[in-house]
Amino acid sequence: MPTLRIGLIGTGFMGRAHSNGYRQAPRFFPLEWTPELTAVCGRDGEKTQRFAANWGWQHVETDWRALVRRADIDAVDIATPNNLHHAIALEAAAAGKIVLCEKPLAMNVAEAEEMAAAVARSGKPSMVFFNYRRVPAVALARQMVEEGRLGRVFHYRAKYLQDWTMNPALPQGGNTLWRLDGEAAGSGVTGDLLAHAIDLALWLVGPIAEVSAMSETFVRERPLQDAPETMKPVTVDDACTFLARFENGALATFEATRYATGRKNQNTFEINGEAGTLAFDLEDAHQLQYYRHADDALARGFRTIQVWDSKHPYMQHWWVPGAAIGYEHTFTHAIADFLGGLATGEKRVPDFADGLATQRVCDAVLAAAADGRRHTIRYTATA
Amino acid sequence: MPTLRIGLIGTGFMGRAHSNGYRQAPRFFPLEWTPELTAVCGRDGEKTQRFAANWGWQHVETDWRALVRRADIDAVDIATPNNLHHAIALEAAAAGKIVLCEKPLAMNVAEAEEMAAAVARSGKPSMVFFNYRRVPAVALARQMVEEGRLGRVFHYRAKYLQDWTMNPALPQGGNTLWRLDGEAAGSGVTGDLLAHAIDLALWLVGPIAEVSAMSETFVRERPLQDAPETMKPVTVDDACTFLARFENGALATFEATRYATGRKNQNTFEINGEAGTLAFDLEDAHQLQYYRHADDALARGFRTIQVWDSKHPYMQHWWVPGAAIGYEHTFTHAIADFLGGLATGEKRVPDFADGLATQRVCDAVLAAAADGRRHTIRYTATA
Amino acid sequence: MPTLRIGLIGTGFMGRAHSNGYRQAPRFFPLEWTPELTAVCGRDGEKTQRFAANWGWQHVETDWRALVRRADIDAVDIATPNNLHHAIALEAAAAGKIVLCEKPLAMNVAEAEEMAAAVARSGKPSMVFFNYRRVPAVALARQMVEEGRLGRVFHYRAKYLQDWTMNPALPQGGNTLWRLDGEAAGSGVTGDLLAHAIDLALWLVGPIAEVSAMSETFVRERPLQDAPETMKPVTVDDACTFLARFENGALATFEATRYATGRKNQNTFEINGEAGTLAFDLEDAHQLQYYRHADDALARGFRTIQVWDSKHPYMQHWWVPGAAIGYEHTFTHAIADFLGGLATGEKRVPDFADGLATQRVCDAVLAAAADGRRHTIRYTATA
Amino acid sequence: MPTLRIGLIGTGFMGRAHSNGYRQAPRFFPLEWTPELTAVCGRDGEKTQRFAANWGWQHVETDWRALVRRADIDAVDIATPNNLHHAIALEAAAAGKIVLCEKPLAMNVAEAEEMAAAVARSGKPSMVFFNYRRVPAVALARQMVEEGRLGRVFHYRAKYLQDWTMNPALPQGGNTLWRLDGEAAGSGVTGDLLAHAIDLALWLVGPIAEVSAMSETFVRERPLQDAPETMKPVTVDDACTFLARFENGALATFEATRYATGRKNQNTFEINGEAGTLAFDLEDAHQLQYYRHADDALARGFRTIQVWDSKHPYMQHWWVPGAAIGYEHTFTHAIADFLGGLATGEKRVPDFADGLATQRVCDAVLAAAADGRRHTIRYTATA
Repeated sequence: MPTLRIGLIGTGFMGRAHSNGYRQAPRFFPLEWTPELTAVCGRDGEKTQRFAANWGWQHVETDWRALVRRADIDAVDIATPNNLHHAIALEAAAAGKIVLCEKPLAMNVAEAEEMAAAVARSGKPSMVFFNYRRVPAVALARQMVEEGRLGRVFHYRAKYLQDWTMNPALPQGGNTLWRLDGEAAGSGVTGDLLAHAIDLALWLVGPIAEVSAMSETFVRERPLQDAPETMKPVTVDDACTFLARFENGALATFEATRYATGRKNQNTFEINGEAGTLAFDLEDAHQLQYYRHADDALARGFRTIQVWDSKHPYMQHWWVPGAAIGYEHTFTHAIADFLGGLATGEKRVPDFADGLATQRVCDAVLAAAADGRRHTIRYTATA
Repeated sequence: MPTLRIGLIGTGFMGRAHSNGYRQAPRFFPLEWTPELTAVCGRDGEKTQRFAANWGWQHVETDWRALVRRADIDAVDIATPNNLHHAIALEAAAAGKIVLCEKPLAMNVAEAEEMAAAVARSGKPSMVFFNYRRVPAVALARQMVEEGRLGRVFHYRAKYLQDWTMNPALPQGGNTLWRLDGEAAGSGVTGDLLAHAIDLALWLVGPIAEVSAMSETFVRERPLQDAPETMKPVTVDDACTFLARFENGALATFEATRYATGRKNQNTFEINGEAGTLAFDLEDAHQLQYYRHADDALARGFRTIQVWDSKHPYMQHWWVPGAAIGYEHTFTHAIADFLGGLATGEKRVPDFADGLATQRVCDAVLAAAADGRRHTIRYTATA
Repeated sequence: MPTLRIGLIGTGFMGRAHSNGYRQAPRFFPLEWTPELTAVCGRDGEKTQRFAANWGWQHVETDWRALVRRADIDAVDIATPNNLHHAIALEAAAAGKIVLCEKPLAMNVAEAEEMAAAVARSGKPSMVFFNYRRVPAVALARQMVEEGRLGRVFHYRAKYLQDWTMNPALPQGGNTLWRLDGEAAGSGVTGDLLAHAIDLALWLVGPIAEVSAMSETFVRERPLQDAPETMKPVTVDDACTFLARFENGALATFEATRYATGRKNQNTFEINGEAGTLAFDLEDAHQLQYYRHADDALARGFRTIQVWDSKHPYMQHWWVPGAAIGYEHTFTHAIADFLGGLATGEKRVPDFADGLATQRVCDAVLAAAADGRRHTIRYTATA
Repeated sequence: MPTLRIGLIGTGFMGRAHSNGYRQAPRFFPLEWTPELTAVCGRDGEKTQRFAANWGWQHVETDWRALVRRADIDAVDIATPNNLHHAIALEAAAAGKIVLCEKPLAMNVAEAEEMAAAVARSGKPSMVFFNYRRVPAVALARQMVEEGRLGRVFHYRAKYLQDWTMNPALPQGGNTLWRLDGEAAGSGVTGDLLAHAIDLALWLVGPIAEVSAMSETFVRERPLQDAPETMKPVTVDDACTFLARFENGALATFEATRYATGRKNQNTFEINGEAGTLAFDLEDAHQLQYYRHADDALARGFRTIQVWDSKHPYMQHWWVPGAAIGYEHTFTHAIADFLGGLATGEKRVPDFADGLATQRVCDAVLAAAADGRRHTIRYTATA
């Protein structure tokens, strides 16, 4: 069985999630390619050594360029803050590596276009870790849409609500809070949360034609994590909302925030079609709500599909009906899907072109929030 | 005990709901004024006779001007299609009557301003039947906001989803489907559903400063109810979405539609404040969701308050904890509140000034949907 | 249209619920008999006068025997504490009156047998107010069972949970707390709550063949309501649980208690059949859960039927889909059904024979709880 | 760091779940002992080789006695059908091994007593895999009980509902359906499902004093998995219900079945105490319902605690709030807890004495179901 030798850059939360995925995928899925945990790169050598020991990475690097140049690496997995995605991806693609990248793909459309062009030139497959496509309930939703169970779509509504930055004393920057620092993150909830919501919308309903937006930064300055006595203006959006019209005529609302008290990871969507409705909430990720208009009127109602039947996406590889899986499994699925696509040449995962499409919508949303106008998305235009 | 002699105009769905309210309020609430069902007016004399016999209305009229002129009437209750509100209210106010009116108050801001001015000139109290303020769970939400349980408000999100017009064969106009006819209704979901949502938002959070909007008419022509072979363009909005910023800085999303398959009367709001969150869904109207940030982290979670305790608004007058009330009771509450305010001179209900404020937001939303720009609301401006 | 002249005995909670039912039924249902609120009887003359004035009862009595003897009464409605049901029913039946009675029918099987025999002798219709059969969702469940949607039944599980007597300082007896006094109530939760649960079980699944039981009295003595310094032993059951086997082989669990903290009126049942499952919770009375085994496995799940469609039992007479009704409506339905049955001669309501059947199960449960043995129910046996 | 060399017997569903647990525990928990996957035993050598290769077991055996005798094994993990637990445990204990065993501990009390005595004699720690204690929400419930948040307990109600054996064509016996074969399983749902429910009850509330029971076998004969043309009587219980009184006076209901259509793994409990209520449902395992009686009456309600805060049991070792874990993690927790207890000598897991206590209740339930009488449990008695 061929192996894919992975070089991972980043030892934070996402580095951990990816490492677990590489370890678990071959245990549960009948893969035709085996991932090999060849090398990991982190800035802090000692911490990276411990990380490597825990997860079974064979080699350690502290300079990402050194990792990218290693001859014993087939694929570079970018799990760094957003501001490094572009540089790493370009070098990795130039070095002929497969490139896998955490979302959002880039800081902006300009970067994303160069990255998509680079992997296109390299002729190698790519993946953006839009892991929520890999929740079985979400994959089931997509399957049901493709089977025509919704018919003409009228509405889409998406929320991604969290509350972890409400405390004004929470600092920004540093190792763990770079998401609050505009220089490292590019944007706030738009890149972090809306990017997920937009990717799902494009996957489930199709291209978004136009957007109107409003956003807000509720806490306007925060101390630095690495220099707590220094206050620095917050340049990222704390909350961002937008209205959209899809190319197919469906009307949509989107909202993301880190100020929705009590909501921890409420990534939701609802699709209303003439034949039925689907609704999902990541906080109850094992369920998909489904209303089938054709059911007899006496006994019709929203069905709570518990997505753990062996016929449901991914689930035959895990346990039994009634035995839920969790968050980490979405990364295992992404990796299994990617490796499965390697074997067949089939596109099974969101690639850099998809990451770019999402970035186009993100940038249009930020522009619309800034100028108060409705913006049209052109997927083929350059920045 | 003084009596308030009512003249009701309209014998449709709302005429029925109001009639029941007038009958039930004195049975359950310790009123200081008693409503008397003096006269009812409908265009169809025979139908109106039957209506009067069923509900106990003492006199019948078939011309609303005749009813308004009756000396034995203290208050005129307008339960007609929207396009009659303005003319009736102006004549009733001029005749010195108290005026009660179904929502939306008017077809547009110009009408609403004249109506608000007319009742102001008459010096008599007025009411707009924004009955959802009278759901005990909604009244409890308002009470909790006033008690400061939410603190600074970050977000408001409102939906009002129905699905009853999805069928393109459904006609427009006539007695029962005037809501689909732009000439009778003024607007579609904006006046019908968003007006409720906006009224609650203004009541719960305060004035809305600016809006961006998108709307859609999914079925562009429909047959006439009274002439089924004639197709007529649909001029009302089937769905309308908007973003808003409140004067206090909170960010909001609103959506109303009649194309959300499976949603029958899903009028929802959620308010996120720094101290907590409240969430309501009219489809589970006996409940209010409450998250209290100050609860200990180990045992914190959304509380499902079942709003039937004797301490909850209105509920001591009904049955016992565990015995739910329903939709019709909101009208009984509105009437009881209005009569209670008569006795004390206190403003307890939404009046024509409130109806006008909601109309201003509705008109701005429609304008923003049309031109794609962000619109500012000026509450003191004339049309 | 013929009228049925009602004489109501009891002005407490149930007297109020019945009065409202008599007033509302003709407003909403196309009845062929009209109820007339002829006379009401309560021990306290002044209170009864006020009650009569509020609800529109034409005459007032303070001696129930005087009411029963009135020639202008067609039907006697017994809404008193349990210990008066037997005497009143026997006299009313002997006087040729129709007898309507609150549940539980009697203090024990011996009383219930005499009462059932008395109405049988009189040849007049009777009704026991098992009002929860009249919840639209429960009536729908019955309809679905009759349509064969469940197939062979394997399981039934019922709970009726409240928490209002947890406080040991709560007194017993008097006007409002007679349910805690064994002399007035006969039993505790068995007659008060289990009687409802048993009636629904017999109606939905069929006769119960045998039972095993355990019960408990958590607070062993309470002060008297009318003499708070006097403690009296509590002789009613605070909680009662039993297992049952139906004659059709289905296995069941039942539980009732007034010590389930946080549960106010949680009257639930679930029926598992080979073709599907139905589940109901009175605390969300507008819903019925339905699992249909034959749905395709990919999209199968519990359906939340919102029982407010015009095709659902009773609902076409009320408002529109999405407009819930509440607790009080179950009494209106009971009265409308009873009057409808009068017109056609059809049995539409639970009568004294049904009340007796439930009483047989109640007594067997109490006996099984006392002796720890499994008891067989014989429906045709005398006490 | 010391290692614990494991020998696993059984390569079915549970063998897989345990293997994953041994692999994952050291990745996520700061263990002081490291498990080593030393040897695995299965009857089918080739299948066991593949199993070992997948999970990383170093050696393979096909005779469990050979595995138990290996000098390089410190602990024997029994993941076989129930009828082998006793023999293996006795030999393993005699060989001085630590013994870990899947539940139910034994076929009956006689076996369980010998097993408990054997591990007591060996002086080595033991564990029974009652993995549902390790669901974070269940562990939180236990913590809240210990903190006194419920006060005096009035009620406990437990269900464990599945539906996977409804189809009468489903065979019994063989490799995967031994749970339907009385010779291999000992009992049906009593040992398989009620054992879990009883273990949780004893852990959360304390000893059960007496039980009454009813059980049923709905499908009385089934073909053999390994000889489909042969029908064999079913000797296991398909469903079993019982009532119980705890030594502390609380009253309880228990039910387990494999015939609850639509319920896949609905293992639930609810505890009503004077100060509050806790409720859990394994089908929504990331949640714990909590009602706190002392909350102010206006805003009181059941709290849905989402058990993924870093302060909740086990959760700081996984991801972030909002990122759920699943079924498999309960085994990882069991193993981490066991290894943690090894290091400190503290009892952190259910051991063979706990397995025996549960077995005593199981046997009493089966006896009570058979003879229709109430049975008393004596925890210190021999069989």
